Amino acid sequence: MITYKLIVAYDGTHYSGWQIQKNSISIQATIEKVLSKIFKEPITITGAGRTDAGVHAVGQVAHFKAIKKNYKNLHKSINALLPPAIKVVSIETADPLFHARYSAIGKEYHYYIHTGSSGDPFTYPYSYHCKAPLDLVQLQKGAQQFIGTHDFSSFANGAPLKLATKNLIRTISKLEVLQNGNKISLKFEGDGFLHKMVRNITGTLLEVAKGKISCDDIIPIFAFKNRSKTPAPAPPQGLFLMKVFYPGEIQSL
Amino acid sequence: MITYKLIVAYDGTHYSGWQIQKNSISIQATIEKVLSKIFKEPITITGAGRTDAGVHAVGQVAHFKAIKKNYKNLHKSINALLPPAIKVVSIETADPLFHARYSAIGKEYHYYIHTGSSGDPFTYPYSYHCKAPLDLVQLQKGAQQFIGTHDFSSFANGAPLKLATKNLIRTISKLEVLQNGNKISLKFEGDGFLHKMVRNITGTLLEVAKGKISCDDIIPIFAFKNRSKTPAPAPPQGLFLMKVFYPGEIQSL
Repeated sequence: MITYKLIVAYDGTHYSGWQIQKNSISIQATIEKVLSKIFKEPITITGAGRTDAGVHAVGQVAHFKAIKKNYKNLHKSINALLPPAIKVVSIETADPLFHARYSAIGKEYHYYIHTGSSGDPFTYPYSYHCKAPLDLVQLQKGAQQFIGTHDFSSFANGAPLKLATKNLIRTISKLEVLQNGNKISLKFEGDGFLHKMVRNITGTLLEVAKGKISCDDIIPIFAFKNRSKTPAPAPPQGLFLMKVFYPGEIQSL
Repeated sequence: MITYKLIVAYDGTHYSGWQIQKNSISIQATIEKVLSKIFKEPITITGAGRTDAGVHAVGQVAHFKAIKKNYKNLHKSINALLPPAIKVVSIETADPLFHARYSAIGKEYHYYIHTGSSGDPFTYPYSYHCKAPLDLVQLQKGAQQFIGTHDFSSFANGAPLKLATKNLIRTISKLEVLQNGNKISLKFEGDGFLHKMVRNITGTLLEVAKGKISCDDIIPIFAFKNRSKTPAPAPPQGLFLMKVFYPGEIQSL
């Protein structure tokens, strides 16, 4: 069996998310259908992160195993069959032990926000439109409190019992807040992110930036160790999985 | 009756075009529904140009007449009720004789193309992805032949009998071809554009840039005075109505 590593970009607007679900079209299922057709064998792919419905990716990573090898124009053939909202950026053979999810040592996510009263018809599927004015100084000050190693239970979605058995400690190595006119971007880097963690953190920071809660409220929210006091997650359309980090290098096709 | 002038921006991807049509949602109908609700009277709007399904606008202009006047927060209220893909950029009262279509003295359209083998999931609804390599020198040389005053019969869609009774002479004052990496934009300015004229011209220029026809073939296509020898129009998603020009100034609300 040959192991392949894919880097995938997609506009998640009209998909039910990465993972296969009943009665709706997922990114994963769409790619698997194309690969199975090309390889003429049933292909199952594993993604580095399961992005939710409406969330986008510039650098999602996935792997799969196939019996056959060495297809001519493999990259072009895949993209020719994929819908325009999903594109394979690169495809390489990988070490047989490579696993898109378990081999990953870090991820980078961006969350985009635009402010102002009227919104932009060309930005709304790729950025969260926040009509309320945002205090950038408070937003940046609040962001500092998430950097470092913490128990992120209060920022993880999932069933409480299931969460209770999990390791919910993660390290955020970078959380930059950048502004360009009415556009604000939050750039997250860390060793791993729990389900909806980026959106839960962004939702909390938005409440800080709106003045609804203060930076001092963040430590008590962490201490609660569940989501009962955490503000609502920011909506999916502003979120992009930018990059997945792996140790070492992988052989190019 | 008060006359209002609107500037409207929209992402045309999921609409049947500007004009009201049976069994499909148009930009015009969507805006009329919102205005009728706000003004509490049936409102009919007239657009400067009837963009086709999938075509976008940054500066479409429309006018309407209403009995009532002086709504507080009119602009904000309209945008709050419109879907995110349609936004009113501005609303002003206008001279009673102002007519979005008949008062217009010119229009600006842009057509966006991107080349390269794999396409971009975030660009495809707003740009035509042309996989074939394009000869930019030929594209620019071909574009020169459209500048000036011509009978554009060969580049107008419509029923032949209906077209025969129309004035099909138009003046293109500007047709710029710009390149930025794998992105190409065609910027058209003229006194008026016939149905699908920008897309028909772009379609012909794409054939020139691909080397399928030569620049010398353009004059014979013009001479034919019908579309039988004209290459297929370029697809709608690359087209943007950027601006509509009017003489004089209109009073701001």
